[in-house]
Amino acid sequence: MSEPQFNKLALIGIGLIGSSIARAARKHNLVKSIVIADSSAEALKEAEALKLGDAYHADAGAAVRDADLIIICVPIGAYAEIGQAIALNLKSGAIVSDVGSVKQAVVRDLGPLLPDHVHFIPGHPVAGTEHSGPKAGFAELFEGRWQILAPVPGTDEQAVGKLAAFWRVMGSNVEVMEPMHHDQVLAITSHLPHLIAYTIVGTATGLEGSTQREVIKFSASGFRDFTRIAASNPIMWRDIFLNNREAVLEMLGRFNEDLTALQRAIRWGEGEKLEEWFTRTRAVRRSIIDAKQA
Amino acid sequence: MSEPQFNKLALIGIGLIGSSIARAARKHNLVKSIVIADSSAEALKEAEALKLGDAYHADAGAAVRDADLIIICVPIGAYAEIGQAIALNLKSGAIVSDVGSVKQAVVRDLGPLLPDHVHFIPGHPVAGTEHSGPKAGFAELFEGRWQILAPVPGTDEQAVGKLAAFWRVMGSNVEVMEPMHHDQVLAITSHLPHLIAYTIVGTATGLEGSTQREVIKFSASGFRDFTRIAASNPIMWRDIFLNNREAVLEMLGRFNEDLTALQRAIRWGEGEKLEEWFTRTRAVRRSIIDAKQA
Repeated sequence: MSEPQFNKLALIGIGLIGSSIARAARKHNLVKSIVIADSSAEALKEAEALKLGDAYHADAGAAVRDADLIIICVPIGAYAEIGQAIALNLKSGAIVSDVGSVKQAVVRDLGPLLPDHVHFIPGHPVAGTEHSGPKAGFAELFEGRWQILAPVPGTDEQAVGKLAAFWRVMGSNVEVMEPMHHDQVLAITSHLPHLIAYTIVGTATGLEGSTQREVIKFSASGFRDFTRIAASNPIMWRDIFLNNREAVLEMLGRFNEDLTALQRAIRWGEGEKLEEWFTRTRAVRRSIIDAKQA
Repeated sequence: MSEPQFNKLALIGIGLIGSSIARAARKHNLVKSIVIADSSAEALKEAEALKLGDAYHADAGAAVRDADLIIICVPIGAYAEIGQAIALNLKSGAIVSDVGSVKQAVVRDLGPLLPDHVHFIPGHPVAGTEHSGPKAGFAELFEGRWQILAPVPGTDEQAVGKLAAFWRVMGSNVEVMEPMHHDQVLAITSHLPHLIAYTIVGTATGLEGSTQREVIKFSASGFRDFTRIAASNPIMWRDIFLNNREAVLEMLGRFNEDLTALQRAIRWGEGEKLEEWFTRTRAVRRSIIDAKQA
């Protein structure tokens, strides 16, 4: 068991990710106490019933008092409000981080609201499930997964090192990355796949009655995998698309070009083109298995 | 243990599906003997090493002699050749079926090649994995999954019932369906999801060097699920798209309309539209879990 690395951890938002951090930090004895804030009375009550923290607040401003580490775990659209609520109550030298799936918008919108006497280190755990809420969390969520830290140039290196160590103990592999590069990589690996999954599941449910029922019945043939992705938190994903617009639209443009080329190959019966494309994509799976991310 | 329902089963093609049928038929004592044909010497040798059959032939025509049940388990593009090879050697009263993911083209291309004295009952087990070859098969593949039978009007009902019973013992739920309706349902539940997965995996691997490497590294964020689908047999999928062209292009048209609408909502910051769409798709996952297909 390690020594606690922080006296007081404040988690702003106690959904899947916040709840998993609470459980993992407790399991690994990373903090002396955990304070939880959530604007939803129901989520707070659930968190309390699960004994996830030592104190519970509806108000984020009250939760961050005396905290050494503050992690914001709410949809990105709520960051500005959180920033205003906590700014005056932050302890000097505290680390403020987050878990949002977009990083440029966070640097742009949250950064200016925070006082100079805190260390602002945006973060993104590349981990999750399609489930939401305090009950969905589990202590092992981050094991073997990437934690990306995206501090702006000039951030205190000791503070970055301390936050990295916190995530490493929870099982993550830590990677430091430029916010802009983060948003481009995640646009193709995460945001576009989700957008496409959301689209096709919507297309299928918009079909005529009899076919629609059979979509569920015969979903095991490929469709099912998309429905899992398209079951993720709608508010969280709305905010991701609105806040990583440029990178998502750029990747979507490339995707559309490729889809049109394959569509044309199907229409004109160009079997060789299809076979060549499908053979190339098959090799990617092997790379992912080799990288132990499968 | 049930009584054997057929004396001699001939499996034409011993990949993932053929090999799984061999194992399941043996496990449930459904047939007295199994004859295996494959044009690949390597696949035949593997099948023999795995003891999947009682006899092995490179020539499909030799394999079907005296068989009561013949199941064609090769990519759809090879059906015409198989039909010509087996037609003259088929026993009177034998059942000829297949496992192809498209049914209208099979009725159209294979049907006319077969003699009137056999029962032609096209089939499609809605089950599979991204792996290929004789070693990839397993006896439990069909358990709890759908087996669709798509006989043309006027097919002998007793023969259909006998084939349905064969699949039920292997664990399948059997559904009888018009070939055209089958192709429409599978176009949206299976063919379009595969086309989209193949597309995005190709798009990602076509990115500039540094980003491309990170696509593998951070694949756990959504992309990974698509790579599994896009690792399926390239020849099989080439033939599916070429043989279910109309239905796939129709569903792709609908998908493109929906994707364009979401693209526009992202560009113009229409959060409500996105949230409404994402909330609707989330409910579909619940339906699939309720239907025990998750």
